[in-house]
This record gives sequence, structure tokens and C-alpha cells, in this order.
Amino acid sequence: MDDRAAPRVAVLGVGLIGGSIGLAARERLGAVVAGYDPDPGTREAALAGGAADTATDSVAAAVEGAEVVFCAAPVGLLPELATAALAAAGPEAAVTDVGSTKREIVAALGEDRRFIGGHPLAGAETAGVANARADLFEGARWYLTPTAGSDGVLYDRLQRAVAGLGARPQAIDAAGHDHLMATVSGMPHAVANALVAEAAADLADGERVPEVGPSFRDATRVAGSNPAIWADIFASNSDAVADSVDAVARRLSEAAALIRSGDKEAIAAWQAAAGEDRRRLLEADRPGGPLHELRLIVANKPGTMATLALALGEAGVNIEDMALHPAPDMTSGAVSLWVAGAEQAERGAALVRQLGHSVTVVGAGG
Amino acid sequence: MDDRAAPRVAVLGVGLIGGSIGLAARERLGAVVAGYDPDPGTREAALAGGAADTATDSVAAAVEGAEVVFCAAPVGLLPELATAALAAAGPEAAVTDVGSTKREIVAALGEDRRFIGGHPLAGAETAGVANARADLFEGARWYLTPTAGSDGVLYDRLQRAVAGLGARPQAIDAAGHDHLMATVSGMPHAVANALVAEAAADLADGERVPEVGPSFRDATRVAGSNPAIWADIFASNSDAVADSVDAVARRLSEAAALIRSGDKEAIAAWQAAAGEDRRRLLEADRPGGPLHELRLIVANKPGTMATLALALGEAGVNIEDMALHPAPDMTSGAVSLWVAGAEQAERGAALVRQLGHSVTVVGAGG
Repeated sequence: MDDRAAPRVAVLGVGLIGGSIGLAARERLGAVVAGYDPDPGTREAALAGGAADTATDSVAAAVEGAEVVFCAAPVGLLPELATAALAAAGPEAAVTDVGSTKREIVAALGEDRRFIGGHPLAGAETAGVANARADLFEGARWYLTPTAGSDGVLYDRLQRAVAGLGARPQAIDAAGHDHLMATVSGMPHAVANALVAEAAADLADGERVPEVGPSFRDATRVAGSNPAIWADIFASNSDAVADSVDAVARRLSEAAALIRSGDKEAIAAWQAAAGEDRRRLLEADRPGGPLHELRLIVANKPGTMATLALALGEAGVNIEDMALHPAPDMTSGAVSLWVAGAEQAERGAALVRQLGHSVTVVGAGG
Repeated sequence: MDDRAAPRVAVLGVGLIGGSIGLAARERLGAVVAGYDPDPGTREAALAGGAADTATDSVAAAVEGAEVVFCAAPVGLLPELATAALAAAGPEAAVTDVGSTKREIVAALGEDRRFIGGHPLAGAETAGVANARADLFEGARWYLTPTAGSDGVLYDRLQRAVAGLGARPQAIDAAGHDHLMATVSGMPHAVANALVAEAAADLADGERVPEVGPSFRDATRVAGSNPAIWADIFASNSDAVADSVDAVARRLSEAAALIRSGDKEAIAAWQAAAGEDRRRLLEADRPGGPLHELRLIVANKPGTMATLALALGEAGVNIEDMALHPAPDMTSGAVSLWVAGAEQAERGAALVRQLGHSVTVVGAGG
């Protein structure tokens, strides 16, 4: 046993993120976790699931004596929650939040030397304390946005706590963070929405998108993501996202002119540059080497994907990413499997062929 | 045995599409297939694979006596190939092509009563005669673009042949076809390119896109698809694609203004409309009911996906579409599985829970 006193952590809002912080803080930091949530059912579930040692509906009670306070509410509610936390917390408590945009809350609270904004890149796909896990942050980037006024000791304590939860803390200024998130998250969501709206306006009533391949399905997968959450994210980062969306609109006008010209050589060069850029942005420095894509067609029936995945899995070939695109009649599907490294890709392709499928390997360079 | 003479089919270009036509025509129509290809290795592979009864490097020799002639070359080469086919074919041969844009070739050749343009929606994911399959067109939409000058008997023969290959023929005028393809395929490819270019310009040199979730990866999956093929497709449908890209650019400017306003209610309504539109465009009338999404987090190691897929498969729960998004450290991943119908989705979720994963079901309406 460690002979120091157990660290005291307060978690304000014990949903998916807050609950996971609580679980990880108790398991990994040996912390005593005081949970706050306005919802009685959530408090009960947090206690039952081991996400907190105590649970209260009073912010002041939860933060009393805490060394680190995590505010984990929806973005729109965070400034108010963090303000209440700072009002109740002692002079040596580090207070942070987990919101996906940072300028607004840092502008509101960054003057307080105890407040340091934060944003873990984890947990976007599910919600609720029932999905909380102690390893949710394992290996995940966790941005922290200290300001010139932040207390150095408290910042150090916070980044150690975040690392202790399993995450990889990285300091970034609030404006840089929001600009980055606008480009890689907000803007793609807005683009997907525009693409869907254009197709909906263009196709006849009740007409389905013909199955021309994965392009439309993939490009619009995030269209219409949880409206309440995304209205908050867009609104709290509105100028950065709007700038980025405007920039894409300008690029599309240029692309339209290029396509209209019919200049095949210039179009091919533009197409090739996009492929290069995407690989560079997404696939550099993956463990095991650059991603290779295995493309195959399989019967779309129960068990087919399992047999494939099992054969690769048993041979130690790990599937980094996959996509299955059913044919119109659902009897077959085009499957893309991404595997790291040329050697693994070739082994994977050989296994797939042994199962009787023909397969094309598309290399990272090709 | 049928007592009529075997139908005679010519396939000009025996790659993936042409080879699959040859295989299907021989197996399903009992046809005698004459193959043409300029490449000796491809001819040899077509014969060896059973995609043709004979193979020649002469268009005239291949089409001699043919009742139906399929031209299956890259889009840019089709007008020349089809012209040669029409010059050599008899007065009662139906001549068609498989190009993904139709106005150009129909404008060039539609005056000939024997020519009817075509476009099967199949085979976009792989290439080469080695991947040819007799069932490539099973259930696939196959557009045919007859004109007022098309011969009715030849059109009827062609659409029966296409149905005989397993496809679902549908007549559409060439302009309508190209407009539809611009909206659902060309434009999404252009949008993905613009999105990548913007991120590449915006992120620092060598900076990777942080793993904020599936949005950027999915939205850009088709960026930079085969430059030579896509230069052809864009160029041969340039005005329709450019119009559609311009329209999306305008929608994005409007979206930027909406986001800049910070009006959460209006943003949420826009977000909700995009979700509704996407479901309507993609997921109506699926066999088994509207798609439901199961969201879960799993360890990203060999065999995990297999165990999952196997459990669902053995219980008869079919996975219509799936996506796996690894966490930054690759030790875990967010998985989305799409299952048709509420009942199947609930059974699937129960099985996933039995395997120890927590899972969120996102319904078609929610």
C-alpha cells in the first residue's frame, strides 16, 4: 500500500465520460471519488457501477476537499457547472472540464489560476454511465489548455492525473484546439449534412440512392449526428467551424471549375494529390507500418465475415479498420479490410484466397 | 437441352466487368461468348477462367454473328470501341456499353438504331479478369439508355440479356442517368477531395489528424480514388458533376452562415433534417426493415470482431454494414454494426451483451 493519503477526485456529471473518469481514478489512481449528478438514477448507477465512492446532488458537497475536479457535462452546461465548482472548491484544487470546444470556457474562467480546460478524445460513440469503462482513455489524446494565468503546480497535478487515467495529455492553446477540432470534426460533419441535403433535393420523392458503391454512404455517415449535442458543439465553436466550412465551399467552387474544364490531366493530378494528402493525414506512423487495403467480394450471409475475421485473427493479422458495402440485393458485399504493413497485408490476402475469395491488395503507396 | 441455337454474345474488353459478363452469359444464358481484348495476357486469362469461348484481338472477328455486343472498356475508350463494334456488327446486333456516364456516348452513337447505352452498378471495388465472377451482377441495378431512335426489338433483347445475367435492368434517359450519377457518386468524390485538401492545408507539416472519431476518416474514404479512372468519369460527365459540386458549395456557404449565427435551435433543426434525409435516401425499404445501429467498444485484437460476428451470424442476425474505428493506441475500437429491423437489432444487442460488451442501439427513428 502507498503510505500517502489517497488522492481525492471530484467528478461533476457521471455519464459516460465522468463515469469512466471515476472508474479509472479509483482503479488506477487509488483515488477516493466524490460524484455529483443532478439525476438520481444516474447517481445510483454510478455508485452501483463503482464509478464513485459517494454521490450527491450538491456541487459544493462533491468538490469539498477535492484535489482535482473534473466537470463532465454537455458543452452548453459546462461554463455554469465549472463556475459553481470554482466557487465551492478550495484554493489548491485543480478544476478542469471535458468539453469538446475550449475558447468559450477558457475565456469565461481562464482568469482563475485553478481552472485549466481539457478535452479527452474518447467516448464519442456511446453515451450513459452504463457504458463507462476504466480503460476508456487508455492511449487517448487528452488536450489541456492552460493559460498564462494557470497555476503551474495545479497544471502539473492535472496532467499527472490525466496520464494516470491512461491518457496522453498534450498542452495546446484554446484557440489552436478549437481551430483543429473545427477542421477535423466540425467541418466534416457540416459537409456531410450539405451533401445529404443536396442529394435529397435532387432525387425524386421516395427515390433511394442507387448502390453505386460506398462513396455516398461513407461520405455522409456522420450527417445528422445527435442534433442537441452537435448544436452545442457547432454553436460553441461557431466562428472556427464556419471559417473552415467557408474554406471548403471555396475549394469546391474551384473543384467545380476544374471539373467543368474537362482537363483530364489536371483532374487526375488533383485526384492523386487528394489521395496522397489523405494517406499522410491519417495513416502515417501507424503501429506496424502504413495501412494496406484488402478488397474482396463476399456472400453477405451470417457467418461469412466471421469466418474471414477469424482466419485473419488466428493468424495474428489484425484488422485496423473495415467497411462492408452490401450489393443492392443484399446477397453479397464488397469488403475492404485495412491491415498495417505490407507483410501482414500479404499474409492476410493469402489467407483470404485460401478461403476461396479473390482479393486485391491496395498498397499505401498505390 | 434447349432446342434453339445458343445465343451468341460478344464481349469487347474482358476485364472485371467484361469477364463477369462472359462468365454469366455462358453459365446463365447458355451463350457462346466471343471475347475481344487488345492484351494477350488478358485474352489468355479470360479463356482459362471460362469468361469466353474464343478470344481475339480483332473487334470485327469478335462481333461477327453476335446478337448482343457488350463494350467493356474504360469510359474514355468506349466511344471508339463502340464505333468499331457498330461498323463491324450485323444489322440485327444489339450493341451496348458499360460506361459509368452516358450522355457522351449516346450523343455520339445513339443515332444508330442498334446502339443502346448501359451501366451496371457493380464491380467498382476491384479490377481485372482475375476477379470476374458469374454472379457479379446478381440483383444489381443495370441502367439502359435507349433513345427515340433505338430499335424496339433490339432493346427488348438487350434488357432480357441483362436480366438473364442476374441484373435488374432499368431504362433511364442518358441525361437523367448522368445527373443522378453526378449527385450520388461524382459529387461525393469531389467533396471528399476538397475536405482532405482543406485539412492538409490547415494542419501543420507532418501533423496527423487526431482521432476525434470516425467523422474525418469516413467522410474522406473515397478521396483520391484511382486518378486515371476518376479523371475519365469526371471529364465525361463534367457539367453535371460541376453543377452538383457548385450546388454543394452554395449549401456550405449557407451552412457556414447558419453556424456562424450560433442559433442552437436552428442548427439542431438543420442537423435533424440531415439525419432524416440520409435515412430516407439510404435506408428505406431494406429487406427486414429500417437499419438499426449497434454501437459498442471492443478490444482491438485478433479474433474479437470474429467472435462478435460469429455470435450474431449463428443466431441468424445479419450484419448489413459495419464500421470499426480504432482508438489512438489501437488497443480498442468503437464498432458500429447495422442490422435490419428492430427485432433483429434487439436480439443482436442481447447477444453482444452476453459477450460482455455494453452496447447502445440507435434506432432508425432516433
